[in-house]
Amino acid sequence: MQLVRGMQKKPVLAITMGDVNGIGPEILAKALARPEPWQWCRPLAIGSLAAYENARHMAPGAPPARALQDPREPLSGERNLPLFDGGHKTPPLQPGMLDPEAGRCAAEWVKIAVQLAKDRTVDGMVTCPISKDCIRQAGYAYSGHTSLIADLTDAPDYRMCLFTPTMRILHITAHLSLRDAIDAVTADRIVTSIRIGHEALARLGNPSPRIAVAGLNPHAGEAGAFGREEIDAIAPAVQICQQEGIACSGPYPPDTLFGKMRDGLFDMIIAMYHDQGHIPLKLIAMDEGVNVTLGIPIVRTSVDHGTAFDIAGQGIAREHSLCAALELAAQFARCPAGRSTP
Amino acid sequence: MQLVRGMQKKPVLAITMGDVNGIGPEILAKALARPEPWQWCRPLAIGSLAAYENARHMAPGAPPARALQDPREPLSGERNLPLFDGGHKTPPLQPGMLDPEAGRCAAEWVKIAVQLAKDRTVDGMVTCPISKDCIRQAGYAYSGHTSLIADLTDAPDYRMCLFTPTMRILHITAHLSLRDAIDAVTADRIVTSIRIGHEALARLGNPSPRIAVAGLNPHAGEAGAFGREEIDAIAPAVQICQQEGIACSGPYPPDTLFGKMRDGLFDMIIAMYHDQGHIPLKLIAMDEGVNVTLGIPIVRTSVDHGTAFDIAGQGIAREHSLCAALELAAQFARCPAGRSTP
Repeated sequence: MQLVRGMQKKPVLAITMGDVNGIGPEILAKALARPEPWQWCRPLAIGSLAAYENARHMAPGAPPARALQDPREPLSGERNLPLFDGGHKTPPLQPGMLDPEAGRCAAEWVKIAVQLAKDRTVDGMVTCPISKDCIRQAGYAYSGHTSLIADLTDAPDYRMCLFTPTMRILHITAHLSLRDAIDAVTADRIVTSIRIGHEALARLGNPSPRIAVAGLNPHAGEAGAFGREEIDAIAPAVQICQQEGIACSGPYPPDTLFGKMRDGLFDMIIAMYHDQGHIPLKLIAMDEGVNVTLGIPIVRTSVDHGTAFDIAGQGIAREHSLCAALELAAQFARCPAGRSTP
Repeated sequence: MQLVRGMQKKPVLAITMGDVNGIGPEILAKALARPEPWQWCRPLAIGSLAAYENARHMAPGAPPARALQDPREPLSGERNLPLFDGGHKTPPLQPGMLDPEAGRCAAEWVKIAVQLAKDRTVDGMVTCPISKDCIRQAGYAYSGHTSLIADLTDAPDYRMCLFTPTMRILHITAHLSLRDAIDAVTADRIVTSIRIGHEALARLGNPSPRIAVAGLNPHAGEAGAFGREEIDAIAPAVQICQQEGIACSGPYPPDTLFGKMRDGLFDMIIAMYHDQGHIPLKLIAMDEGVNVTLGIPIVRTSVDHGTAFDIAGQGIAREHSLCAALELAAQFARCPAGRSTP
């Protein structure tokens, strides 16, 4: 990917505000009150000016926003926050309340950011949390951000990943019932997942990342004693990718694998279902986790938490996950995309 | 349970040596070289004298063993280790090797310990690791210790739990394929599990333990969007137990629940499948985890690791899990059993 707006070396990242009645505006203002995000990127907020200005009261040092009429207008070098609302004005703020109109705005802002990323007006996008209930009540038939973005980018083979400084987990499926997730444990899907994970880490500068593939069953099935998916799907997929030159291995017993990654033995784990990866990651990295969507043609990262309606408007939300999401999106945006399997 | 051998206040614990070619003898000697186990209990080893004496070379300070002809003979007050082999002499030691005869002895020693616990010669039993492959090759049709012990005690409703100082997790099933484990998510099984967990913690001195029941599906199914087990089985089971006066709640989204227990919000989690509990516990407590079998009529704890054939005989095995298993078994043995639901 060529960085857009060539006069700048820092990538431009669209940051969607999410649900204005959640903690999105607050973590946005708090993150941009810190100096690091400005060293990593040039932010372009997509959201409500009123909500941002209100949130600045909870974020000492947060720069003022500057409303843009057109998101394509040049970003000035001053330290203010260019902000675009796309004509979607939110109703009066009601922190902690579920308001379908706030959900509608949040979804429309995501659509704007995706379009800006697709036409290379921005180098990537970072999302603050939306409420699934809100967007459903507003009439959007999506289970959340990731499926909406995958649909808008025409990328059915997207994968949800969680990154922290020490752990990188790619899930072969996301929001399915556990029963349906087991049905999706196929060699094809695992092969695609390993390739996507390999390509992402190669893009970030590791030409031969060590990828560990988890088993599905307890003890990875113990040679078929407790389930055959390891024998029928996972091991064959690992073999195919090894033959392509990818440094992958497995299937490993899931219950001891995540500690091995934390201890540095692997660069990425391929998890067989949502909670297999989410349980260990959230246990040790509640604050610094980043949700990354791979397998789509744009750069997209997200905070790893929800709208937190229960603490919205109180000034106690933590911006760490958003900062980490901004840093990771900037890293991806600075590196050229493209297949880099050996 | 009345403590046996009434002249002693400390419970007598049978400790099975496990597979002599694994790390069992070494961790036994190392644990008994420490003063704490002798403060908690009076140990009675069930295993090989030769293997123990060999392991003492890796465990400075470990007391000598004293072979018993009859495990019922009085235990002297001296600091030596009474040891009974039941006539099962192991073949020459081959650390790290898979020897069916070692597996046969390990299984027979478990049977002896169960019998001693059933007839109250001992107050409980603690097991060192066996090799499932070895005992299978020796002709025993069990997937491991726990199912063997449950069978010998005629206790089909046993439950495998993992305990650490901060986490207590009861699994409603153990060594099943994930697909079969989902089929076992029934209200009946969950109700029984909650009652067993409640009873165990009440026995340890907490009359109203806070028990959290995990969901099965991502986000606990999001009101049926990703699976219905939460609605059809888990929530009804929680309600039944609440009506009995048990302080249980749930179902909770699995990916954030384990951090809440670590932070002290709950005393026990009821996990819906093996890895749901094993993944988080092993990630944060590799060394100090204890495997406890509940729902059986004897006290039984175990180390939370395998035979570790790869490091057997090297003197580098760690005895921490065995020490924790001894401490917990002694705690259970000191407290009277019996239903204590409110």
